[in-house]
Amino acid sequence: MTTTEIIHDMGRRARKASRLITRLNTAEKNAVLSGMASALESHAPAILAANRRDMEAGQDSGLSAAMLDRLLLNEKRIADMVRAIRELVGFNDPVGRILDTKVRPNGLTIEKTSVPIGVIGIIYESRPNVTADAASLCFKAGNACILRGGKEAIHSNLAIATALMEGGRSAGLPEDSIQVVPITDREAIKIMAQMDQYLDMIVPRGGYALIEAVVQNARVPVIKHAHGICHVYVDAGADLAMAEKITVNAKCQRPGVCNALETLLVHEAVAAEFLPHLAQTLAGQKVEVRGDAATQKLIPGCVPATEQDWSTEYLDLILSIRVVENIDAALDHIAEYGSHHTDSIITPHEDHAKRFLREVDSAVVLVNASTRFNDGGELGLGAEIGISTDKLHARGPMGLEELTTFKYIVRGTGQVRA
Amino acid sequence: MTTTEIIHDMGRRARKASRLITRLNTAEKNAVLSGMASALESHAPAILAANRRDMEAGQDSGLSAAMLDRLLLNEKRIADMVRAIRELVGFNDPVGRILDTKVRPNGLTIEKTSVPIGVIGIIYESRPNVTADAASLCFKAGNACILRGGKEAIHSNLAIATALMEGGRSAGLPEDSIQVVPITDREAIKIMAQMDQYLDMIVPRGGYALIEAVVQNARVPVIKHAHGICHVYVDAGADLAMAEKITVNAKCQRPGVCNALETLLVHEAVAAEFLPHLAQTLAGQKVEVRGDAATQKLIPGCVPATEQDWSTEYLDLILSIRVVENIDAALDHIAEYGSHHTDSIITPHEDHAKRFLREVDSAVVLVNASTRFNDGGELGLGAEIGISTDKLHARGPMGLEELTTFKYIVRGTGQVRA
Repeated sequence: MTTTEIIHDMGRRARKASRLITRLNTAEKNAVLSGMASALESHAPAILAANRRDMEAGQDSGLSAAMLDRLLLNEKRIADMVRAIRELVGFNDPVGRILDTKVRPNGLTIEKTSVPIGVIGIIYESRPNVTADAASLCFKAGNACILRGGKEAIHSNLAIATALMEGGRSAGLPEDSIQVVPITDREAIKIMAQMDQYLDMIVPRGGYALIEAVVQNARVPVIKHAHGICHVYVDAGADLAMAEKITVNAKCQRPGVCNALETLLVHEAVAAEFLPHLAQTLAGQKVEVRGDAATQKLIPGCVPATEQDWSTEYLDLILSIRVVENIDAALDHIAEYGSHHTDSIITPHEDHAKRFLREVDSAVVLVNASTRFNDGGELGLGAEIGISTDKLHARGPMGLEELTTFKYIVRGTGQVRA
Repeated sequence: MTTTEIIHDMGRRARKASRLITRLNTAEKNAVLSGMASALESHAPAILAANRRDMEAGQDSGLSAAMLDRLLLNEKRIADMVRAIRELVGFNDPVGRILDTKVRPNGLTIEKTSVPIGVIGIIYESRPNVTADAASLCFKAGNACILRGGKEAIHSNLAIATALMEGGRSAGLPEDSIQVVPITDREAIKIMAQMDQYLDMIVPRGGYALIEAVVQNARVPVIKHAHGICHVYVDAGADLAMAEKITVNAKCQRPGVCNALETLLVHEAVAAEFLPHLAQTLAGQKVEVRGDAATQKLIPGCVPATEQDWSTEYLDLILSIRVVENIDAALDHIAEYGSHHTDSIITPHEDHAKRFLREVDSAVVLVNASTRFNDGGELGLGAEIGISTDKLHARGPMGLEELTTFKYIVRGTGQVRA
């Protein structure tokens, strides 16, 4: 078969599975999840053996230490996957929520009800745990899924999916509900992105090239999990100790993630007092600072920031800093260079907080708190499949509810339209 | 300027306008809408003159009578546009709804709040009233819009947009909030569809070629308003008088719209009793029937249905009919050929109704009611910009709430992540 035929066949089978999944009630779905978790445990030796193949190939091909660490599975990481699936059992079923009800004057009753989306494609990179996390979340929400992970993790991903299907099947999981695409070249992504007859949604999670490979070719609706160029704006009058604590946390607590701080904006009225002290603290954390002209004057040895810096997601211990003359300039900077992800203002002024929260067009906007709180767990939303950088359907943390859609259920007694 | 430069410049200006619109409160937005309505009234002579140019050009180029009727504006149609905008003033503001609130153990307060989407592109065909309807709906939800109507209506559309902007401007409407693309070739659609730096969403409303021109090229998220292949399934035991009344209403009340019936499925146990009588009634309504072999035996002179018929949206007084052996066959047929739009079952059996409502993957599913009820007004949802045939973000009638998205507003007192 050609690559296209193989992937279309997977799509056809996933569509069929998705129709059968809609017949399962909450208890039946939870039994499937429990079966998946147990099978992951009992398949651990096979999964670890598959992972060793991937690790050896990765070492041979010269993957970086960081990449190899992401690829690695061990007993603890398998236990984490198992625990995450068992936690899902206890979560409310996102399907069947009544979102709105109406009785019309003609007697029709209308229920807007949450339902599964259908078939979801997930395209991701090297972490094999995503295979278990994404498949179980999609299934809890009543969806079939087609998973296309990174080529480095292909044996691990196939072994995990085999375990999930085997454990689920015995508890009533329809065949083909979880499928891993065995073809790991870019062509497979293109075919998936165009396969709108079988796929209802694609969630790409990864770097620019991966997201672009999906978006360029997509006929299927895409919910991107792309980059975060996140800002903290320190307003005039801000509590500077708080501002420093938040800046350091947002930049340093986990610099490689999308909700980490990339650009700090500082009101000119507090720059001279704030920046020199901050610079010392950041130096202690080994953060490289790149500043505009005003920042360079206040921070000895500061690297000059270029235009490119304002649009760069470093994902590293680098921070760009710009001094602005007022909140309008801060809002303009964020509108021009931000990625609509997560932005925070540090201010005691309620009117400034309100303007910032209203006018900054980002998934999560904060006042006097770290950007690192854009996270499903931290916002109290439960497990997430990722953080959407799109505005439609899912914005910010994308959890179980965002893996459902809705339909209008209308009951009548013979009504016709006049 | 090139076409690309012109349209990108419109996008840049719309983006700027959308930031300014977020500063308007409900009363200010309503004042703008009132200004728009009054200006439409006072500009009526100019709009009618522009429409005469379009009508003359349409006659010269041989547009059909139906097309010319869609293109025509007169005093009454302008009054309808004005009334629709004045009604919008009374509607609840879809922006600023608190969709969820949480207080976290660390003291962070979280409000999930509805906000404007930003800049919306609407791509449509010949009816110039869409210009006023879409622009006012988009604005009520806090969005700027870029409108690309059909080339036949270009002078009408420009005159309407000029009136809306003039009336709105004097009440505080930011410049460039409503723009009509003056370029009417397909190239303009392609450029809009790829302009994801300025457009947050595109809503294409129209025939297959128009939708395809958007989807093929889209980087911008698209909410399609495409075709409806709607079904009625008459179950064994159904009240056949009710079934006939609903069938005739769904097919004949307005055959040219997307929620009209296209394929009737009939359980074999009732076909012999139901179909001959139905055929007589349909003949009285000048409906052409195309049936499968079983239907042909029961309806003298029935045209044989081909495979193509099951996938055809006639939008005309034509009905395809298929006899099925049970509800499973009906569900299979709808899964195979349906367009996920609107489907209805006529049955007294609650278990069959439940299966149909759960398993048919359509925006609106009905029991014992006409498919024609898939409509914002009929479902009690208010004004609509159209009927989405997509599953994400908006499904079925797309009204003011679907012209908003949300953000998470987080307030802290210096919280950082541990």
